[in-house]
Amino acid sequence: MNFASDNWAGVHPAISERLLEVSSGFSAPYGASDFDKKIELRFNEIFEREVAVYFVSTGTAANSLALAAVNRPGGVSFCHREAHILEDECGAPEFFTHGARLSPVDGDNGKIDPNHLKAEIARFPPNFVHAGQPMAISITQATEIGTLYKSHEIEQIANIAKSYHLPLHMDGARFANALVALNLTPAEMTWKRGVDIVSFGATKNGCWCAEALVFMNPEVAKDLPYIRKRAAQLFSKSRFIAAQFDAYFKDDLWLTMARHANTMAQYLQQSIVNSKHARLAWETEANEVFAIIDKSNLNQLEEQGAIFYQWNTPRANAGLVAQHEVLIRLVTSFATEAVSVDRFISLLE
Amino acid sequence: MNFASDNWAGVHPAISERLLEVSSGFSAPYGASDFDKKIELRFNEIFEREVAVYFVSTGTAANSLALAAVNRPGGVSFCHREAHILEDECGAPEFFTHGARLSPVDGDNGKIDPNHLKAEIARFPPNFVHAGQPMAISITQATEIGTLYKSHEIEQIANIAKSYHLPLHMDGARFANALVALNLTPAEMTWKRGVDIVSFGATKNGCWCAEALVFMNPEVAKDLPYIRKRAAQLFSKSRFIAAQFDAYFKDDLWLTMARHANTMAQYLQQSIVNSKHARLAWETEANEVFAIIDKSNLNQLEEQGAIFYQWNTPRANAGLVAQHEVLIRLVTSFATEAVSVDRFISLLE
Amino acid sequence: MNFASDNWAGVHPAISERLLEVSSGFSAPYGASDFDKKIELRFNEIFEREVAVYFVSTGTAANSLALAAVNRPGGVSFCHREAHILEDECGAPEFFTHGARLSPVDGDNGKIDPNHLKAEIARFPPNFVHAGQPMAISITQATEIGTLYKSHEIEQIANIAKSYHLPLHMDGARFANALVALNLTPAEMTWKRGVDIVSFGATKNGCWCAEALVFMNPEVAKDLPYIRKRAAQLFSKSRFIAAQFDAYFKDDLWLTMARHANTMAQYLQQSIVNSKHARLAWETEANEVFAIIDKSNLNQLEEQGAIFYQWNTPRANAGLVAQHEVLIRLVTSFATEAVSVDRFISLLE
Amino acid sequence: MNFASDNWAGVHPAISERLLEVSSGFSAPYGASDFDKKIELRFNEIFEREVAVYFVSTGTAANSLALAAVNRPGGVSFCHREAHILEDECGAPEFFTHGARLSPVDGDNGKIDPNHLKAEIARFPPNFVHAGQPMAISITQATEIGTLYKSHEIEQIANIAKSYHLPLHMDGARFANALVALNLTPAEMTWKRGVDIVSFGATKNGCWCAEALVFMNPEVAKDLPYIRKRAAQLFSKSRFIAAQFDAYFKDDLWLTMARHANTMAQYLQQSIVNSKHARLAWETEANEVFAIIDKSNLNQLEEQGAIFYQWNTPRANAGLVAQHEVLIRLVTSFATEAVSVDRFISLLE
Repeated sequence: MNFASDNWAGVHPAISERLLEVSSGFSAPYGASDFDKKIELRFNEIFEREVAVYFVSTGTAANSLALAAVNRPGGVSFCHREAHILEDECGAPEFFTHGARLSPVDGDNGKIDPNHLKAEIARFPPNFVHAGQPMAISITQATEIGTLYKSHEIEQIANIAKSYHLPLHMDGARFANALVALNLTPAEMTWKRGVDIVSFGATKNGCWCAEALVFMNPEVAKDLPYIRKRAAQLFSKSRFIAAQFDAYFKDDLWLTMARHANTMAQYLQQSIVNSKHARLAWETEANEVFAIIDKSNLNQLEEQGAIFYQWNTPRANAGLVAQHEVLIRLVTSFATEAVSVDRFISLLE
Repeated sequence: MNFASDNWAGVHPAISERLLEVSSGFSAPYGASDFDKKIELRFNEIFEREVAVYFVSTGTAANSLALAAVNRPGGVSFCHREAHILEDECGAPEFFTHGARLSPVDGDNGKIDPNHLKAEIARFPPNFVHAGQPMAISITQATEIGTLYKSHEIEQIANIAKSYHLPLHMDGARFANALVALNLTPAEMTWKRGVDIVSFGATKNGCWCAEALVFMNPEVAKDLPYIRKRAAQLFSKSRFIAAQFDAYFKDDLWLTMARHANTMAQYLQQSIVNSKHARLAWETEANEVFAIIDKSNLNQLEEQGAIFYQWNTPRANAGLVAQHEVLIRLVTSFATEAVSVDRFISLLE
Repeated sequence: MNFASDNWAGVHPAISERLLEVSSGFSAPYGASDFDKKIELRFNEIFEREVAVYFVSTGTAANSLALAAVNRPGGVSFCHREAHILEDECGAPEFFTHGARLSPVDGDNGKIDPNHLKAEIARFPPNFVHAGQPMAISITQATEIGTLYKSHEIEQIANIAKSYHLPLHMDGARFANALVALNLTPAEMTWKRGVDIVSFGATKNGCWCAEALVFMNPEVAKDLPYIRKRAAQLFSKSRFIAAQFDAYFKDDLWLTMARHANTMAQYLQQSIVNSKHARLAWETEANEVFAIIDKSNLNQLEEQGAIFYQWNTPRANAGLVAQHEVLIRLVTSFATEAVSVDRFISLLE
Repeated sequence: MNFASDNWAGVHPAISERLLEVSSGFSAPYGASDFDKKIELRFNEIFEREVAVYFVSTGTAANSLALAAVNRPGGVSFCHREAHILEDECGAPEFFTHGARLSPVDGDNGKIDPNHLKAEIARFPPNFVHAGQPMAISITQATEIGTLYKSHEIEQIANIAKSYHLPLHMDGARFANALVALNLTPAEMTWKRGVDIVSFGATKNGCWCAEALVFMNPEVAKDLPYIRKRAAQLFSKSRFIAAQFDAYFKDDLWLTMARHANTMAQYLQQSIVNSKHARLAWETEANEVFAIIDKSNLNQLEEQGAIFYQWNTPRANAGLVAQHEVLIRLVTSFATEAVSVDRFISLLE
């Protein structure tokens, strides 16, 4: 009954086995081997265009280097008030951009509100050096509270980005879960909507450590090789990332895993809706279920081995959770079993 | 016949298999699992004292965060003129220390000359703000040219460090090769000689991606958890590093692999000494052989599939290589086979 | 009729004359002269204790280096949502702290609300690396909207700071105006209330360029000489700052100038209260008057030579300004003449 | 008898008087006033082309922001081994460029040797991320040891810079002294030779604090307004710098002051050549005289009130100074009087 996070799950056997297969022989390091190059080209197919791809070690690295690539002195990037880059990366984005700021934007359902976004950007008039200068907009797909930007919502944000000549970054730590939930292609969820840079996460979806930074316009990434090396993110035996992506993409394993996680989340959601001892905080859109339970149930759940996190009520949902209640987050993954969901629910009852 | 670098080698099967074994089940991320903790404790045994251990993704990360941990405004670290941190990390140490400088020190055989070191430190008188302030000394073991600091040589450097209250860092990208070559224990090669911080590299010696930053005094590392997270070096599924170290240390696999690499290097050295078409540049001490061959032999070697790098003549060896000659570096690893050495030598003849 | 800002005013003649007087002869540079030392000691008298004083070139430099002195990796400083360091320094505090974040705290009247402050700090539980770690609290005295923290309000914030072992910084760009308005001594407004570091501004109050960074505990500032030099803030002919402070403190010129500015502000406030064509936005406490006028009056005022800034309505005052109105800021200084106030008011009528 | 440095001198009365004159009235801050703009335009005349000019507070700021303007990730700038930016700015250039490195180049007479420069740049092959990437070349005019790059020598360096598409920066802390010594116009000593950016120092030549960063190509400086503000180098009452430059340029005061300094240096040099108790270390070209005296004379000179610095023997001049001797630096300025030179020499005899 582990619903703590998808990064508590291990790794799909197909991925570890692929690692085992490629572990012998000699291979050019630092991403220079034919194997690395071949896997990089897979991203062109996945995104249906020529993209620039850089493997890095963590999602935090991907997000930070995305912003570093478009960095400006006195730069300000706009993201949702509860975005991962703002609340959960220990200031890495600011560090890698030498102090560029993340400016929080409000919005319901974990998503940037376009009107708030416009109002915040407007606080930075051109050539007013005191305020600094806008440099990027970042959205998270799926969001920190498991919701999704629909196609037209991405486009709305992208249009604002375009009108200010700002690049649009997508933190895709749960890219695959969003993709299958929305039934979109990678192209449809990104550049066809106006997304310029994607942190393409695979670690949470069944890999060991496989994150790729994807630039729709390779020109934007022209200094990335230096930025990445200087950031200590250039792996010598980089085939170990390439091999993970190789297995990840093979036979659409990544989509299969994400679909399973989402299905389990839907099943969990339905069980909660049916339960007398829990209620849904908001609708589940990808692989994260947010539920409200009575505080008095917490101990018992945990004693019986249920693992999950309590969650801060989003500022936009003030009042949702009563004094005697608690908001909990339940995350599913490729490794979640229906029987665990059943057991969790039975414990609640 | 691949002698390009030990990071061209793959991974020992025992390590990939261990990864496969631990790939199922749920486990607390970010180094918080019992398994991670257990492996961290292995370092206490290895070093025969309580140490603070931080897993990171690359050797560059280990070196850079080591310096970041002891960072000072206007800080200056002293290293050999041809040290990896100075010449091969794209400025990562300066980046992670917010601009602290690396000051090159001369010395024969790839090693810092203690007298030169004292002279360079003396250029920074106390409280003279214009020059900046010394903050660390860093040595590489084995060095960039495959030589080794003997026990008493480490101690000499350490005594200088102590006299200036400077921490002594050891870049141990090839720690194991040095260890078995000198027939020392980790304790004897480090803190018993006065080394304070070790970049403990395992990637070059048969792992995928396993680097540990080891502090002899945990107090020095008290901010490291924040430094590492901010540096985007905290892995979520960190058991994938722990598992590598688990297999690495089991039954002294790491020492066995290093010994094999060194033995192959000795065999290669002897073959070169016996060859009429090559001569040794300097004595081989760990797993890197530097040889001088005629430029006219280069093409043939490469055409026949020998892979290796040409190398810049160290400044201290000016004149060693004639106009018509070229200095080449030949690196052995756990994966090097004697038959490759034989074939390489036969090609030369 | 210039009410744009106190930094539009020039310099008190006594200060320029003092500069003229000390312009001949030779003097040790970089703050090492007897004259510099003597002026530094004046701060001990002013603050009634031994303080560490560092002259810098701008208020932004003072604020940024204050935070740099207490910097921590992944550090987060708390300030009011509309603080100068957050909104008007182009990210300098983040830059000088290598990316440490400024976290906005809400509060009425331009002042941090202690309850909000506690709630924000509580978002950073100890040892939770993902969030980062609190490192400082900064208040502005007088605030960006001309209000003042009363003695007990400073103490309230200071107590919170102490309970979290956080240093408390005061941005005193208008320190003198606050001081005379509250009728406190510098000691009473700072360390006796728990303030640890002061950006002691004199530029806005009649100097050319005279800012001092004052540490109540010199130990905290032990690296400041290097931090300042590296920040390019160590003046060679530093007597030009010392001389300004010399004249500034002589015969309490600084207090006289601040009192004049405040008196003019009170006079202006009264005139607005009496006016039919303007109303006060909130009470004037130091040397800044915020008034609400009809948009239709803007042009005429400006055409007749009145100079002032329109101001964004503070978030805490949403609804205060009607659609057809505009909020304006009127700043007085040592150089403001009563006749200008009269003329401005007569224009309004 | 003060020959310690030109920054020990005070300020020319015409400059302090100009400050007094402009001290009244109101003026737009942050460089936006007509007066500031007018003075900025004077630089176009001085340089005989449209330049972009930014006032900053110190020479260190000018040099650091010059490099920040052309910054690249993993960047490496080349300067003489004994350049001020490398040895005397506490790492400010590295700090403001987020860790870009300064790479020392050898050369006689305090000047970069073009062949050494080419060899050093060649160590950074294109697209070799491990080494980093060249980003600028910086020369000092006059050099740290008072010598001068002749016109054709600047051009030689500039040609190398051009061939690598690198901007050429000139640290002109003693720009005026070099200019009058070489009898060149500013245009002839800079952009007509290929210099792209100049740190135009006036502080050492009779100002309080007046440094300008001059870009020959304003496009290169397009982010400088943000870089400068973020660097805490944007003065509110910036007319105090403008006023200094106003007086500085008026009736060629700057050239007159520099000529006087150089003349005094020549007089001092001649006296040393004629002395039996001192000898010239190398020829005096601007306003710095380097002499070698017997150590036994040091005490007497200092006791009699002569103020000067002992100097490290440049690495290129090893052996020049005997064991019993000492190298001293004697700097003249606009304020040096012939009688001081006479007295100094008479003390020596």
